[in-house]
Amino acid sequence: MTNPLRIGIAGLGTVGGGVVKTLQRNAALLEARTGRPLVITAVSARSRTRDRGIDISGFAWEDDPVALARRDDVDLVVEVMGGENGPAKAITETALKSGKHVVSANKAMLARHGHAMAGLAEQSGVALRFEAAVAGGIPAVKALTEGLAGNEITRVMGVLNGTCNYILTEMERTGASYASVLADAQKLGYAEADPAFDVGGFDAAQKLALLAATAFGSQVDYDGIEIEGIERVNLADIEHAAELGYRIKLLGTASRADGLLHARMQPCLVPANSEIGKLQGVTNMVAFEGDAVGRIVLTGPGAGEGPTASAIIADIADIARGLVIPAFGRPASSLAASVRATTSPIASYYLRFLVNDAPGVLGRVATALAEHSISINRMRQIEHDGDQAPVLIVTHRTSRTDLDRALAEIWRLDVCRAEPVAIRIEDV
Amino acid sequence: MTNPLRIGIAGLGTVGGGVVKTLQRNAALLEARTGRPLVITAVSARSRTRDRGIDISGFAWEDDPVALARRDDVDLVVEVMGGENGPAKAITETALKSGKHVVSANKAMLARHGHAMAGLAEQSGVALRFEAAVAGGIPAVKALTEGLAGNEITRVMGVLNGTCNYILTEMERTGASYASVLADAQKLGYAEADPAFDVGGFDAAQKLALLAATAFGSQVDYDGIEIEGIERVNLADIEHAAELGYRIKLLGTASRADGLLHARMQPCLVPANSEIGKLQGVTNMVAFEGDAVGRIVLTGPGAGEGPTASAIIADIADIARGLVIPAFGRPASSLAASVRATTSPIASYYLRFLVNDAPGVLGRVATALAEHSISINRMRQIEHDGDQAPVLIVTHRTSRTDLDRALAEIWRLDVCRAEPVAIRIEDV
Repeated sequence: MTNPLRIGIAGLGTVGGGVVKTLQRNAALLEARTGRPLVITAVSARSRTRDRGIDISGFAWEDDPVALARRDDVDLVVEVMGGENGPAKAITETALKSGKHVVSANKAMLARHGHAMAGLAEQSGVALRFEAAVAGGIPAVKALTEGLAGNEITRVMGVLNGTCNYILTEMERTGASYASVLADAQKLGYAEADPAFDVGGFDAAQKLALLAATAFGSQVDYDGIEIEGIERVNLADIEHAAELGYRIKLLGTASRADGLLHARMQPCLVPANSEIGKLQGVTNMVAFEGDAVGRIVLTGPGAGEGPTASAIIADIADIARGLVIPAFGRPASSLAASVRATTSPIASYYLRFLVNDAPGVLGRVATALAEHSISINRMRQIEHDGDQAPVLIVTHRTSRTDLDRALAEIWRLDVCRAEPVAIRIEDV
Repeated sequence: MTNPLRIGIAGLGTVGGGVVKTLQRNAALLEARTGRPLVITAVSARSRTRDRGIDISGFAWEDDPVALARRDDVDLVVEVMGGENGPAKAITETALKSGKHVVSANKAMLARHGHAMAGLAEQSGVALRFEAAVAGGIPAVKALTEGLAGNEITRVMGVLNGTCNYILTEMERTGASYASVLADAQKLGYAEADPAFDVGGFDAAQKLALLAATAFGSQVDYDGIEIEGIERVNLADIEHAAELGYRIKLLGTASRADGLLHARMQPCLVPANSEIGKLQGVTNMVAFEGDAVGRIVLTGPGAGEGPTASAIIADIADIARGLVIPAFGRPASSLAASVRATTSPIASYYLRFLVNDAPGVLGRVATALAEHSISINRMRQIEHDGDQAPVLIVTHRTSRTDLDRALAEIWRLDVCRAEPVAIRIEDV
């Protein structure tokens, strides 16, 4: 008989507990599929006695997760503790250096130390996998590294944070403000008590950093991502965008042009009838574009006990079947340092001005745009609101530099009652 | 240096040519990703001299594809000739018995002989892979066998034939008849001159047979699929369905309940605002439901030179990286003979009756349904058309057996001007 794969689990929160339950429930199925038993031998967590609805008495216990990573009876460590540094990093390093495979759900640690960890894994000839760190239950990393291995990837897009997509969807559906929908989301458990990490775009940007590195064969570069959260997305903009046939999404995009990497996580307008535009609620979506395949889109649950366990066990099953590929799809030593683009790519923009309702104002705005080579695709003035009037403009494709100059000049004209709003329109 | 993977390609039509082009264009990328050169050593096709836009002078030529499968300088055979039996089967058998991996795009052959071929592959310790046989460029087989390996799969759904989805989409969009849209699709190259294989549901059913076997660990059972094409889908039903909030799709569904396999490829009503309902044009979609992950949905191009080449090269890359897993995700010897369900699962139905516009007719129809325990969810009579009136009914969940009895009885009442139409509503 083939020998069992012996698993140590570091972290027994919701996700770790889900891994234990799913490995146990589907043990026979997994043995049939991988050809060997997948056996949990040891676990480590903060509290040994907390009731998690699972029986851990059959597993060895380690108070110190780093000790778990050194155990002779562990072939593979599942790291589901979280945290960018500290124990999470220590256990991953120790496990990899000790010749143990690591399956990690830790996007924060990998977005920061992924390249170094990938190098350690390769030195030891073991696997470092992280399907669960990106887009929950969606096999997104596998689709990139393996399913599209024949393609030069040209663009990656993703709606990677369920909390943000839920809030934006609900704002449009109910006409409620950002603050009010966020408060409801917190009550429903869709948003954390401290939502900054989600609504600020940081969680989604960590995931995008991992996808971009995998897609383009570059070193993980979280700091190279332009990040803007949804905190300042205005209900008026959501409603105006809808009237123009768009939806606002917190969209991650990464592309490479002329050797330069563009990566951003920002609120964007996308066509309401596009696949990304139609995505509702907490569901995640990734879209990959390749030179052979064209585009594929994957949708599914981006978080939660079951979906995350599904992704982790997929990685475990691959390793049980003997698949050891580099973490980012090619050897760490061959991953190029990413060369960040210093300018935004050409794009169309949605602009909103709140102007004085006086003769000649519209013309002065349009002229200022024209003087910076920004041509107008559509322009609409909304019904007056006292002596001020909202003006919506959809531009043709322009550089962000030109746009910023034009907006600064328009602001200096002293005809606006509020700072102009500019949101990129993404061709999706 | 690691040794090259030597590839023989049997078939140089659109797909085979695309594989050659893509392997050549992305050679450096593929070597970086797989750690070894992927080298085409030999090819075979009907005509050696036809202009395909590729230079084949550097490859050995075989008139006989079976001879290609025996060559010492071939480690992996790509079978893109097509055909259920004959050379396609012979070359696959020969290659597998000769210890060569096979990557096949041949759904017809695999839907019929897949189980036997999987057994041959395992006896020789080589891989048989068929990502390109199902849903074109979408990594659907990989998602099932690997990405969702931790799940018990509970249901598989798919819109697997682009021609059919294009025709149904266009009928709704333009209000044109089936015959007229089909003729246009033929002109545009979206439908074959002889469309029967596509519009009859057979092409899609072959793909579903492969997905169902992979999902449920059962032997491929093409004959166990209930197949109904789109030839009889009526514009009136598309329009009435739209009024009720549904779209008609040629939908493949496979599920297992109480050890019985239900698999069908049929026109169905699905909610217009569901992911499947929103799918437009030639794009394919698969949805997988698993006990841990919930549901994931994959969308992408279901055919064409580039997408098919992408899928074939993904399989080649896996093999180059050393991944040899059983064709259907578990050993062929462990695949259970599928036990077909003899009755349809409980479902809601859309019914359309064209009745005499006379007093009491509606009541008699409703009574006949009630007598067979079929309760009505919604009922609508459309504006009269002379002395006849279309009546639309959406039932609550019922057995197909009860429904067929009720419809037969209603037909015997002699109040209908045409045979009643019944289309299943799928909860998607």
